[in-house]
Amino acid sequence: MSKSGGGNFFEDFKLGQVIRHATPRTVTSGDVVLYLGLFGGRFAVQSSDAFAQAIGYPHAPIDDLLVFHVVFGKTVPDISLNAVANLGYAACRFRAAVYPGDTLSAVSEVIGLRETSNKQSGVVYVRSTGFKADGTEVVDYVRWVMVRKRDEKAAAPEAHVPQLPSHLQADQLGDAVPVIGTAAYDTGLSGSERRFESYKPGEKIDHVDGVTVEEAEHQIATRLYQNPARIHFNQWAEAKSRFKRRLIYGGHAISLARSLSFNGLENAFHVAGINGGRHVAPLFAGDTVFAWSEVLEAQEIPGRNDVGALRLRTIATKDRPCDDFPWKAGEEYGPSVILELDYWVLIPR
Amino acid sequence: MSKSGGGNFFEDFKLGQVIRHATPRTVTSGDVVLYLGLFGGRFAVQSSDAFAQAIGYPHAPIDDLLVFHVVFGKTVPDISLNAVANLGYAACRFRAAVYPGDTLSAVSEVIGLRETSNKQSGVVYVRSTGFKADGTEVVDYVRWVMVRKRDEKAAAPEAHVPQLPSHLQADQLGDAVPVIGTAAYDTGLSGSERRFESYKPGEKIDHVDGVTVEEAEHQIATRLYQNPARIHFNQWAEAKSRFKRRLIYGGHAISLARSLSFNGLENAFHVAGINGGRHVAPLFAGDTVFAWSEVLEAQEIPGRNDVGALRLRTIATKDRPCDDFPWKAGEEYGPSVILELDYWVLIPR
Amino acid sequence: MSKSGGGNFFEDFKLGQVIRHATPRTVTSGDVVLYLGLFGGRFAVQSSDAFAQAIGYPHAPIDDLLVFHVVFGKTVPDISLNAVANLGYAACRFRAAVYPGDTLSAVSEVIGLRETSNKQSGVVYVRSTGFKADGTEVVDYVRWVMVRKRDEKAAAPEAHVPQLPSHLQADQLGDAVPVIGTAAYDTGLSGSERRFESYKPGEKIDHVDGVTVEEAEHQIATRLYQNPARIHFNQWAEAKSRFKRRLIYGGHAISLARSLSFNGLENAFHVAGINGGRHVAPLFAGDTVFAWSEVLEAQEIPGRNDVGALRLRTIATKDRPCDDFPWKAGEEYGPSVILELDYWVLIPR
Repeated sequence: MSKSGGGNFFEDFKLGQVIRHATPRTVTSGDVVLYLGLFGGRFAVQSSDAFAQAIGYPHAPIDDLLVFHVVFGKTVPDISLNAVANLGYAACRFRAAVYPGDTLSAVSEVIGLRETSNKQSGVVYVRSTGFKADGTEVVDYVRWVMVRKRDEKAAAPEAHVPQLPSHLQADQLGDAVPVIGTAAYDTGLSGSERRFESYKPGEKIDHVDGVTVEEAEHQIATRLYQNPARIHFNQWAEAKSRFKRRLIYGGHAISLARSLSFNGLENAFHVAGINGGRHVAPLFAGDTVFAWSEVLEAQEIPGRNDVGALRLRTIATKDRPCDDFPWKAGEEYGPSVILELDYWVLIPR
Repeated sequence: MSKSGGGNFFEDFKLGQVIRHATPRTVTSGDVVLYLGLFGGRFAVQSSDAFAQAIGYPHAPIDDLLVFHVVFGKTVPDISLNAVANLGYAACRFRAAVYPGDTLSAVSEVIGLRETSNKQSGVVYVRSTGFKADGTEVVDYVRWVMVRKRDEKAAAPEAHVPQLPSHLQADQLGDAVPVIGTAAYDTGLSGSERRFESYKPGEKIDHVDGVTVEEAEHQIATRLYQNPARIHFNQWAEAKSRFKRRLIYGGHAISLARSLSFNGLENAFHVAGINGGRHVAPLFAGDTVFAWSEVLEAQEIPGRNDVGALRLRTIATKDRPCDDFPWKAGEEYGPSVILELDYWVLIPR
Repeated sequence: MSKSGGGNFFEDFKLGQVIRHATPRTVTSGDVVLYLGLFGGRFAVQSSDAFAQAIGYPHAPIDDLLVFHVVFGKTVPDISLNAVANLGYAACRFRAAVYPGDTLSAVSEVIGLRETSNKQSGVVYVRSTGFKADGTEVVDYVRWVMVRKRDEKAAAPEAHVPQLPSHLQADQLGDAVPVIGTAAYDTGLSGSERRFESYKPGEKIDHVDGVTVEEAEHQIATRLYQNPARIHFNQWAEAKSRFKRRLIYGGHAISLARSLSFNGLENAFHVAGINGGRHVAPLFAGDTVFAWSEVLEAQEIPGRNDVGALRLRTIATKDRPCDDFPWKAGEEYGPSVILELDYWVLIPR
């Protein structure tokens, strides 16, 4: 077999298998800055050590989605290098704050396998966990991908599809946030006076701004996560594909939408969990991304008086403003929708 | 009113009003590096801790213009989101050195208001101040912008136009620079032996090099400053504008010109103040920026034997070398001129 | 003479001359991150403090090639601003690990001069050395460039061409690597179980992936090294050149090839020396770079049981996969080859 490998195929995965992923990575203030340059986040907690310390953090934490992308990137060479499609995420919980200097690694456990009916591929379910060098678990999530078989004639394992929750419950949220001093949370500096109590289920918020993506930007971002998926980087090969262009990593759209959501959700400083996400359509360089959100739930967190949880559905579009909240027409997504994300954010009370 | 706001309009501003801006930001060595990657500065003091320490700094200071851009960026959502035009700057003083780890915030005071004759907009004058978490003021400047009215029929306040100096005086300069050890200032490492005494008023210096700007570069830079002005990022909307393209943040041209000015001003390591600036024409991705400078004044600073002050007029052009020092033909700027900047730099004696 | 200078011409160089270069530069964790964003390296030693410390480093070292580029960049204004051609490198040794916080400077000694037969230019040979603020030498190499004469009639010095080794010997390698704990070197985290003993001379490895270069990327990288060579940045001028485009810094192709080489050389964590390199054809934005390597030698290092040395020939191509190992047809390089690099890497035993 070639030394440069080629990733795992469907028949390489076994139920219960645990895969340790390369490459451990120390995240630093350099990551904070480059991620800022790429996405332009304005949440005060992640931007300012002084602000974070005033409310009870030892230091400004690393952006939750940057942590997710770094952990996700590690899983790509082992899990999805031969993926036909990324099918879904579920039950993603952010469990501990990450600070500059922490080293992140990842493992995945295979928790489900199901051959597809045409026998050319199969669906692999993994629970991936990111942790620090001292073992502290910082994020975990379930992901399922359709992976090619190396050999169509290979025998398939018995189908096993894990039970997955439609969404996290409020009592599963908040482990990554210390009890914060809500009086010390300075809404003059954070950009808005609106706290938990200002948001009601059913409310829709247009995030107003649009941002155009450049090839250099998404390539730099995806390399920052050490995510080597070929489809994002190789124009020579992609020119022969259906889209004729490099496909942008789906997480890029998520980070853009999160950053845009500051307009209207200025104090929703922490992504506590991701219930599910769907990349409805591909994003390409030159596209302009817009976003809007609907508040699905507003929940108190048992035992905490400092922060509440908002469950949001954020929709991102390309080349279409969101002032009329585009989403679905019947069962179908509108033609400009690229992302639907169902997630929980925490916001001071 | 929509949660995602829309910035202030002319009638929202009151004389004497003080606006605290979001988002505080801790600048780090990551900022130093990304700013270097974007502009390529070669001034030894900002590049090397060892060089800076040898002459009396505790650490290499953050580039002055990076400090300016970060502070400026904070003011945008409150001051100029509905600006029709950025009209001018004055009396910008750099008052304390900023180091990695410092957290920057900004406030603005409204110091002038004047409705325009067509009653559709008004000019707002603000004095903006950037400061550290401990209250140390690091930069202040006056800026005036023409801002749309929300309602043309809204009553206008009595006109008040502040008196502004044509330029700072030498005794207002240098607070951000410790007394430096001029003997320890190693001109072998700094790139030139020329010190204060080598420059004479009237002297013109071509900065020789040209640098082409890419969309990804100016977007990354402008996000680094958390400046959300829409015109820089949203190609979908700008395609419908007069220019049909994203407009590059004016500060990008200033930073490019400053970086180019190393060729000929190698030891002018500190921008001490900006007397005024004019963005004569817009800059777009794909344009190549050149620059030249004229020494307007060479002044000793009262009480200091270590550094002298040069007042410079730097002209930046696009797609036109500056070996013949293009500026004005009569009252009109030459067709390639994009920037005129009048400012003070400090240089060892 | 103009203050903004114009670099040295052939007749400005004297045999034995020592040139101290501007600008000293402190490298930080910001450099590590931006270099990662630009090249996507996945070698565990440079990526993780925890991994590096486990095997005996005090901290993750700065990528060897980043050190090389920073040192090289300093030499450009003095050595090659008037270069007609970069002719070669030899005997590049990495002699001490560089860590965040170290300040790098460079000096060059002129070790050879030879006027070209047409008397319009001459070849200048320099030995350049990069060192830390405490004097520790971190890298040295010989480079020769063809430099224009200012005045064709200027007398030429007596020709002196230095003797250069075809390649470094194994006992010259490894000074930049502490004795590492090979048992603590975790091949689960590093991405492969293959150590020194797995590689044999004559073996060829396709590095599989391809990566497309963007203008913003190579400009940011080259500015990161404070390399001001005009040909990389000035589209207005280059539009009039033979290629009509900005030429990408040759070191960019080297770094891309090194990063791609992780596929198949996962544990070859240290570039110990560069025997020689040839930029066979220019690289431009939009090109997609592929690479493959041949193992030329596998040598033990006298006195060391922890690491062995592999001498590699890495070939990079543009817009052509390397699964059939393209190189030369007879004396001529294949039409897609852009780089041939002969170098030594260290890998745990």
